[in-house]
Amino acid sequence: MVGGGKDAFIGAIHRIAANMDGLIELSCGALSINPEIAVDSARSLFLPEDRTYLNFEEMISKESKLGSDKRMDFVTIVTPNFAHFAPAMMALENGFHVVIEKPITFTLDEAKQLKKKLDETGLLLCLTHTYSGYPMVKQAREMVKNGTFGKIRKVYVEYPQGWLSKLSEREGNAQAAWRTDPKKSGKSGCMGDIGTHAAHLSEYITGLKITHLCADLNILVEGRALDDDGNVLLKFDNGAAGVLMASQVAAGEENALKIRVYGEKGGLEWAQQEPNTLIVKWLDQPAQIYRAGGNYTDRLSTFATKNCRTPGGHPEGYLEAFGNIYRNFALTLSARIDGTKPSAENLDFPQVDEGIRGMAFIDNVVESSKSDRKWTEYAV
Amino acid sequence: MVGGGKDAFIGAIHRIAANMDGLIELSCGALSINPEIAVDSARSLFLPEDRTYLNFEEMISKESKLGSDKRMDFVTIVTPNFAHFAPAMMALENGFHVVIEKPITFTLDEAKQLKKKLDETGLLLCLTHTYSGYPMVKQAREMVKNGTFGKIRKVYVEYPQGWLSKLSEREGNAQAAWRTDPKKSGKSGCMGDIGTHAAHLSEYITGLKITHLCADLNILVEGRALDDDGNVLLKFDNGAAGVLMASQVAAGEENALKIRVYGEKGGLEWAQQEPNTLIVKWLDQPAQIYRAGGNYTDRLSTFATKNCRTPGGHPEGYLEAFGNIYRNFALTLSARIDGTKPSAENLDFPQVDEGIRGMAFIDNVVESSKSDRKWTEYAV
Amino acid sequence: MVGGGKDAFIGAIHRIAANMDGLIELSCGALSINPEIAVDSARSLFLPEDRTYLNFEEMISKESKLGSDKRMDFVTIVTPNFAHFAPAMMALENGFHVVIEKPITFTLDEAKQLKKKLDETGLLLCLTHTYSGYPMVKQAREMVKNGTFGKIRKVYVEYPQGWLSKLSEREGNAQAAWRTDPKKSGKSGCMGDIGTHAAHLSEYITGLKITHLCADLNILVEGRALDDDGNVLLKFDNGAAGVLMASQVAAGEENALKIRVYGEKGGLEWAQQEPNTLIVKWLDQPAQIYRAGGNYTDRLSTFATKNCRTPGGHPEGYLEAFGNIYRNFALTLSARIDGTKPSAENLDFPQVDEGIRGMAFIDNVVESSKSDRKWTEYAV
Amino acid sequence: MVGGGKDAFIGAIHRIAANMDGLIELSCGALSINPEIAVDSARSLFLPEDRTYLNFEEMISKESKLGSDKRMDFVTIVTPNFAHFAPAMMALENGFHVVIEKPITFTLDEAKQLKKKLDETGLLLCLTHTYSGYPMVKQAREMVKNGTFGKIRKVYVEYPQGWLSKLSEREGNAQAAWRTDPKKSGKSGCMGDIGTHAAHLSEYITGLKITHLCADLNILVEGRALDDDGNVLLKFDNGAAGVLMASQVAAGEENALKIRVYGEKGGLEWAQQEPNTLIVKWLDQPAQIYRAGGNYTDRLSTFATKNCRTPGGHPEGYLEAFGNIYRNFALTLSARIDGTKPSAENLDFPQVDEGIRGMAFIDNVVESSKSDRKWTEYAV
Repeated sequence: MVGGGKDAFIGAIHRIAANMDGLIELSCGALSINPEIAVDSARSLFLPEDRTYLNFEEMISKESKLGSDKRMDFVTIVTPNFAHFAPAMMALENGFHVVIEKPITFTLDEAKQLKKKLDETGLLLCLTHTYSGYPMVKQAREMVKNGTFGKIRKVYVEYPQGWLSKLSEREGNAQAAWRTDPKKSGKSGCMGDIGTHAAHLSEYITGLKITHLCADLNILVEGRALDDDGNVLLKFDNGAAGVLMASQVAAGEENALKIRVYGEKGGLEWAQQEPNTLIVKWLDQPAQIYRAGGNYTDRLSTFATKNCRTPGGHPEGYLEAFGNIYRNFALTLSARIDGTKPSAENLDFPQVDEGIRGMAFIDNVVESSKSDRKWTEYAV
Repeated sequence: MVGGGKDAFIGAIHRIAANMDGLIELSCGALSINPEIAVDSARSLFLPEDRTYLNFEEMISKESKLGSDKRMDFVTIVTPNFAHFAPAMMALENGFHVVIEKPITFTLDEAKQLKKKLDETGLLLCLTHTYSGYPMVKQAREMVKNGTFGKIRKVYVEYPQGWLSKLSEREGNAQAAWRTDPKKSGKSGCMGDIGTHAAHLSEYITGLKITHLCADLNILVEGRALDDDGNVLLKFDNGAAGVLMASQVAAGEENALKIRVYGEKGGLEWAQQEPNTLIVKWLDQPAQIYRAGGNYTDRLSTFATKNCRTPGGHPEGYLEAFGNIYRNFALTLSARIDGTKPSAENLDFPQVDEGIRGMAFIDNVVESSKSDRKWTEYAV
Repeated sequence: MVGGGKDAFIGAIHRIAANMDGLIELSCGALSINPEIAVDSARSLFLPEDRTYLNFEEMISKESKLGSDKRMDFVTIVTPNFAHFAPAMMALENGFHVVIEKPITFTLDEAKQLKKKLDETGLLLCLTHTYSGYPMVKQAREMVKNGTFGKIRKVYVEYPQGWLSKLSEREGNAQAAWRTDPKKSGKSGCMGDIGTHAAHLSEYITGLKITHLCADLNILVEGRALDDDGNVLLKFDNGAAGVLMASQVAAGEENALKIRVYGEKGGLEWAQQEPNTLIVKWLDQPAQIYRAGGNYTDRLSTFATKNCRTPGGHPEGYLEAFGNIYRNFALTLSARIDGTKPSAENLDFPQVDEGIRGMAFIDNVVESSKSDRKWTEYAV
Repeated sequence: MVGGGKDAFIGAIHRIAANMDGLIELSCGALSINPEIAVDSARSLFLPEDRTYLNFEEMISKESKLGSDKRMDFVTIVTPNFAHFAPAMMALENGFHVVIEKPITFTLDEAKQLKKKLDETGLLLCLTHTYSGYPMVKQAREMVKNGTFGKIRKVYVEYPQGWLSKLSEREGNAQAAWRTDPKKSGKSGCMGDIGTHAAHLSEYITGLKITHLCADLNILVEGRALDDDGNVLLKFDNGAAGVLMASQVAAGEENALKIRVYGEKGGLEWAQQEPNTLIVKWLDQPAQIYRAGGNYTDRLSTFATKNCRTPGGHPEGYLEAFGNIYRNFALTLSARIDGTKPSAENLDFPQVDEGIRGMAFIDNVVESSKSDRKWTEYAV
């Protein structure tokens, strides 16, 4: 693991997600650029001293010299955005698979370079767009794919948070500090951080691609350097219309990602804060409440059932969705090691192409926001 | 009453709303342009034969000749949009107050003419923007007005319906037929019918005015003549950002008007389908559930409490919200008759200015939708 | 109307409910035993002076002498429980139909006397068990009746309120005063006031009859004379088990009547505070959300659709449910006057038999509560 | 681990819960009484062959001979109820701490024997009453303890499930088979399996003890040997009244444990299927929505905050609640090993006393259900 020391947020989440199913073990780490934190964090995670590294270069270089039965199997990168590319590229160059926290890189170009390297090496890259790990999100995707709702006409995705309602970046909040700093976060704040999740979710569930967008990015808290709010009109490649709203200044909201999709015959609604429920709506029948682990496996996709650990009514959450991404990645790796073919369900984790589209989304919304023209073509 | 015969929808609603509080009695009507329906409908409503009219001209002209203690006190106009202006103007010219179903007229210009006439005559016009009649909407407005949430930064209003997901206008649905017909409905379908409600609600609750918008109106059901879906980015006069979504092809949705408003310290959420609840969110405290008729009158505005008929937990709904508009209008009329001053609460019903802004909204979204420029200034 | 003066709660509700559909007009009243209030209240309701009475004896006796085209059609009695019987009996003896607020009388014996008189006279008695007026309650009943859920096994009904959490009866709350006074309310407080609603609802929806019960009535606020809380185990005539909970000291609850019924194949859930929704649950399929006015009339009983005034998504509430009872009663009366047969839907309002079962319920829970035996047979 | 082979349900849950935080590692197991399953299961869990045992006697005896740095630290017992006592007692006798799935034993007497042995040895026993591991349950308990609601008057706990709505035990459902078999499950089915959870939750949150109960246990699916449904009236030691409902034949329900508690000033409501929310109700203020990880740590107990892994809006669920019990147990063990004092938060996991009360609950409800007397004293 690169990054994820004691003072970080997402590193701990990655560890729980990876631990959960007993398939992955943390074997070494360069957990912080601060040597003291790196060492301290490693100790508290029971890492051996000789595999506690002070930076990623040391880690990758030393690990690559260990025997194939001893060295790490893959590298997880949980540093701030600007520090994703270098360790990822070095890992790939040294034959290690990679797991990266989203957004994949700092720039679109870096993402494309990673893709090139992946194509050359045949290695795997897993991007932790957590929300696509939820079983009911997968159920939604399968229902759309199977034509359950007919042609999709309208997509409505929103991601309100409230945690940046004050200038917390100036009050010692480390998370806020780097995420609102263009040098560490990239050219967009809110849209890069959470708008990308919303965009990914909309494409993941509908199977459609955004082709045009019209963005209004805002800095609603005075004194901030990057957008903390944004509203985007969307056009999809089948002609469907869409709206994407993301905000980090929606005071009082927690992490309220929600998507609604409407087709000719009905629609669906999924909200991350109540993730085990998928509301399925019909033009001319009562709406239905699909539930993760529901007692009707004939109606649930295997993509949903294989990403559940418990029967209906035993709520699984964010950590399990995250764990699903790790589990599917790990089982794909195992299959590769065993020389077998991973199942479609196990292959279903976000990879470099999703990463590239995410970076393109950031570029496109920023460009559109600056433009006087209504529609900006979605360039990749 | 003009319009509202047996085959109509909204006329019956107006009658229930007007009846409810025992303050208003239906005394005469020109209930349909079809004489048979007019007569039949009048009979089933127990109207006397001599006050059953075949058209509004006859009604207004004959009623104006009755003694002041006998003739109707005001005219309610519930015809399709294109047929609002003529009876309204004639009523005003003959000294009758007017209640009009929204949108106020067919064109913005007609609305302005009505305003001019109202200014000349001193008569009252009540516009039935029903949703502002709900007590919790009024509570929301008062909380914003009192600075409860600090400066408002973001407004998010949505109005998905699904009832036009098919070309019902060609399947004998009378409601669908006129509402999708530019000659009867006006230059916009969905935005004129329900987008105006959403826009009005956003301005009513926040006390702000839309200054710019960027609209994407869509015809998502092939073969339709007017927009059945629309997504609009908004700017308000205090700099707040907004999104307005309205759709009549969100298959499976009923009448899901919902608004969220966020300020510096917190926000609010109100949904028409659960209208007795107002969720109040806070940056750093647990959210609160304000309820109509709640046992904490010290925290509820008089605008909320005076528009309730029952204690908390006895749900009031759409008809009561509609009834509140009629009741407040009636009590304002009574006060005028008695020579007293109506209370602020009673004066709180939509009037001609709201009607003019509604017509302007239609003009502006239609213009913006045709334009390649991102932002269109909100002209009135 | 007998009772229901300015200082009363339920009288005003009755008037709105009766007004709503334009079928019933208040023609006369003995609105209070306090002459001043009686006169004042009548004036504010636009009653003519010559039909403003000071007591029910005067009203019934004078009205019965008016011509049949002039006199009132029926008497509504909205006095406290102890004062139901006398006006009801006198009305029946003078040929007037009767509407009575529940519980029907002060004692079971009085209720039986009313039944005897009704049998003799052929007159109608309507008991306002409001909650059976909701369309989704009727839908629930029809689904059970049609065997949708198979044999019913379990019934779970609860009615928590919080308004008597303090000794409000000593703080000038008139509603609290009479409802907690054995001389005015009867032998039970909470169970008589709201437990009877819960019991009625359970029998109405399931079509079953309670045969045995085991009651634990409590006075949870010290100093009170009647039960303010009660928990009852139930047995139904098909062997189903049940639980009935009612409380007026569930601090923070409003009027949270809720019922759940489970059969072999599925179950249903209905909550009064969200009355337009009926959750239908299935053993092996996703749950469904049935909605009043839903766009699937083929799946909705005519008992549901004919008790709606608006399309789905325009919430109707408590007053409309109340109005349904009045409307069905009025249409049954009209049919009788016209010599036609009222429809099954119109005949579906609570009558004297439901009143007798309600009084028996009170007797039985009180007896059971005093008993050391577990089960008390439900005697009527 | 004893039990928990491939064909089991709860064993896998225990492993995920134990893995999650990287504090516990599965080191050995006697995973099934079927040797083939035992070996197979161990292999798939990466257990070394020499620590794959065929029965608990072998495991405990061999492990106790390993060096203290090598042998297992504690034994987790996840066999059916009848097979809890023997391995637990043997583990304690050999100096191993114990984690047991609830109910603690087959009989109350066995539970008391375990307590005696624990007292003698000073070892720890952790009972996995999962639901008390939820942060919002702990928040509820702390609020009650701090007098937030005044004296508690009413407790209302329910646990409807639907999975035994058919005779699944005869259709090859292994879970159903042993849970409905008196020889494996004990003298009660539904009450032993889930009623005990409900009873524990009610005592855990309120800090009160049940003193009397009146039970109605039912076999609602014909042909079953043990109760599949039960309704119990409760009295608590402060005079509060209660109702406990548990059912496994509430067709369509998943795992809908829910509790409501009311005091003089307000009440609370918590539902396991939406576990991150605690509704706090007030007599005279709007209800509040407390959320796990909420941005108001000053209002959240440390018992709540220390049992969360993520910020608000990142839902944690059943597995995390389970993980909390393991984590707190593990940290208590660590503290003991380190010679430090575990924190109050870490000591907060169910132990042998809760196990004894659970067994007593089963005895008491069964006795009460057979009795004609209304109230049975809660004997322990």
